[in-house]
Amino acid sequence: MDFQYYMPVRIVSGEDCVKKNARLFRELGEHVLVVTGKSSAKNGALEDAVFAFNLNGQKYTVFDRVPNNPTVACVEEGARIAAECHADCVVAIGGGSPMDAAKAIAMRARQAAPEGLFAHAITEDVLPMAHIPTTAGTGSEVTPYAIITNDEKQTKTSISAPSLFPVYAFLDAKYMACLPQNVTVNTALDALSHAVEGMLSVRANLITDALARESISLLWGEYDSLLKGEYSAQSRRNLLHGSVLAGMVIANTGTSPVHGMGYSLTYFHDVPHGRANGLLLPAFLKVCREKIPQRAEQIYSALGMDADTFSRKVSALLGRREEYSDRELQDFAARAAKNKNIKNCSAYFTQDDLLRVLRASLGDGTVL
Amino acid sequence: MDFQYYMPVRIVSGEDCVKKNARLFRELGEHVLVVTGKSSAKNGALEDAVFAFNLNGQKYTVFDRVPNNPTVACVEEGARIAAECHADCVVAIGGGSPMDAAKAIAMRARQAAPEGLFAHAITEDVLPMAHIPTTAGTGSEVTPYAIITNDEKQTKTSISAPSLFPVYAFLDAKYMACLPQNVTVNTALDALSHAVEGMLSVRANLITDALARESISLLWGEYDSLLKGEYSAQSRRNLLHGSVLAGMVIANTGTSPVHGMGYSLTYFHDVPHGRANGLLLPAFLKVCREKIPQRAEQIYSALGMDADTFSRKVSALLGRREEYSDRELQDFAARAAKNKNIKNCSAYFTQDDLLRVLRASLGDGTVL
Repeated sequence: MDFQYYMPVRIVSGEDCVKKNARLFRELGEHVLVVTGKSSAKNGALEDAVFAFNLNGQKYTVFDRVPNNPTVACVEEGARIAAECHADCVVAIGGGSPMDAAKAIAMRARQAAPEGLFAHAITEDVLPMAHIPTTAGTGSEVTPYAIITNDEKQTKTSISAPSLFPVYAFLDAKYMACLPQNVTVNTALDALSHAVEGMLSVRANLITDALARESISLLWGEYDSLLKGEYSAQSRRNLLHGSVLAGMVIANTGTSPVHGMGYSLTYFHDVPHGRANGLLLPAFLKVCREKIPQRAEQIYSALGMDADTFSRKVSALLGRREEYSDRELQDFAARAAKNKNIKNCSAYFTQDDLLRVLRASLGDGTVL
Repeated sequence: MDFQYYMPVRIVSGEDCVKKNARLFRELGEHVLVVTGKSSAKNGALEDAVFAFNLNGQKYTVFDRVPNNPTVACVEEGARIAAECHADCVVAIGGGSPMDAAKAIAMRARQAAPEGLFAHAITEDVLPMAHIPTTAGTGSEVTPYAIITNDEKQTKTSISAPSLFPVYAFLDAKYMACLPQNVTVNTALDALSHAVEGMLSVRANLITDALARESISLLWGEYDSLLKGEYSAQSRRNLLHGSVLAGMVIANTGTSPVHGMGYSLTYFHDVPHGRANGLLLPAFLKVCREKIPQRAEQIYSALGMDADTFSRKVSALLGRREEYSDRELQDFAARAAKNKNIKNCSAYFTQDDLLRVLRASLGDGTVL
């Protein structure tokens, strides 16, 4: 089996790790651009980061206008502000949207992209970054990906380069203590989907499999907490660590057609990204079971349950499902069939296969 | 739980991965210093590397005088040759000795160390390295450590710095196809010891535990092959991958008093490093079971057997054990008690505890 593995982020984990390891921020630069969302920083993370900057005598500028599903315009605005304040490093605080925007901003602050963000060949020259996740789902803090809304193609598009790996990821589950229930569930489903999709990737290998199994065990071990909406500090840590492990997986394997299909739900109907994955994952996995039964069984074994139980349990977390017309689902299937994720899956999904998954998940209720 | 994790080596694995990925060597520099042992390169690895250098138009100089358990003199000779040929990168080919020597050479080629190798504070400025392991045990290709013979202190001493991580590790099990049986067993026991010792470290965390369990499963899954001395290509791959995973573990956790005790066996009696660990590990684990029973049980569970079965199975691999006088074992215990590995173990070992392990392993046959 040929494989490659690379994940150079320095992970620093534990309660108050930002304050306890304040000196590490000093290495990044003199003037920090903090990239965050309006609400992302209201959980103590920004205060802790500012404590570190002050201790180090670092200057900082806060750019807190990253929306959900960040746009190219947001990236360009952030890059302009980075230039204006002569930022020489970036600290990202938030969920996937601020962290992904931060990566694109850190890149654009150093590299012109006259051919457009999505066509640009990213070089090594990117502002050094530290990421502080405040949700437990995206894993962006340990990946080389930034997912940005692509209005031209009416989807979300991933930009990717080794230089987009942050230098540091600071993991402190206390920032998730007050996370709303819907965000907690959606992001946990995103992380679970990453671990499962990673195991289905053509690039899956023994390292990513070991990490994925541990991730699934941690995340799915919190199923009862997710269902009840009651989280101990240990539950929050398990969800965060499960999400980071899943991030380490997809950093090496990439994602699958689940993400390819989910982008349409988010682009056209504002379905939160993690929820979109959760809506599609059980049916997707059932079709995988037809095509690559042995591999699918390894995943059900990691989940500790059979296909129908998994479907039922995910549905219980999701509540009432979105429903879309068959015509729209056909359009989503056609779009997903063009996504590069298709080739990344060890089960080959035709457009018809994708439509079956979409129908079973969001349409006429076909049971797979 | 506070923890940190960092392992920035790019792992490239698969049959003929050196030749298939020849272009990756090009990035390292113009003139390669190959660091290897007299026999280390006689397995096709040097030929493959030279094929890559020639394809890339790179110049190269071969330094093949690394002995087992490399000395400071060997490091200094290598560094002098690196300077003479203006090497701007290093390719290490071999087991732990050439790979560890290569790291120290790559460092000394760029940094004066007037205070002596072991006292020197290593900076970032190290020649970039690619490592090609030709045994499956040390894991050095994915660690920031170089273990060098320290004649002044009559032991082996580890030098360590993030800059000693290689840029690349190329993993091709075909180089191990003709490895002698004793080397295969000793190096497999070394790798197994790394995975187990990593789980016993105070720095163990959920990432290293996931990697350690997978490593133990791969390595110990090859027990029958190791006992019979018959290896399929898949067996060789499993041993290699188990060793790399264990290397990723100790890169983050460090080792335990097993290594601390083992260094004396190697320094004073030329016991191969892996064999030394294998001789000591079962008794060490039994004493751990007294002190941290829950953790020890997790390890026996990963091994899939109880303490006595594990001891018996390791003994069957080792054959006739070395025996030393009680006076000598007392000296080894005193030396090991001073090793920094002592503080790294989540079970606290007194000098008396170490002596119990040494006696049970190499002395009067006390059964623990």
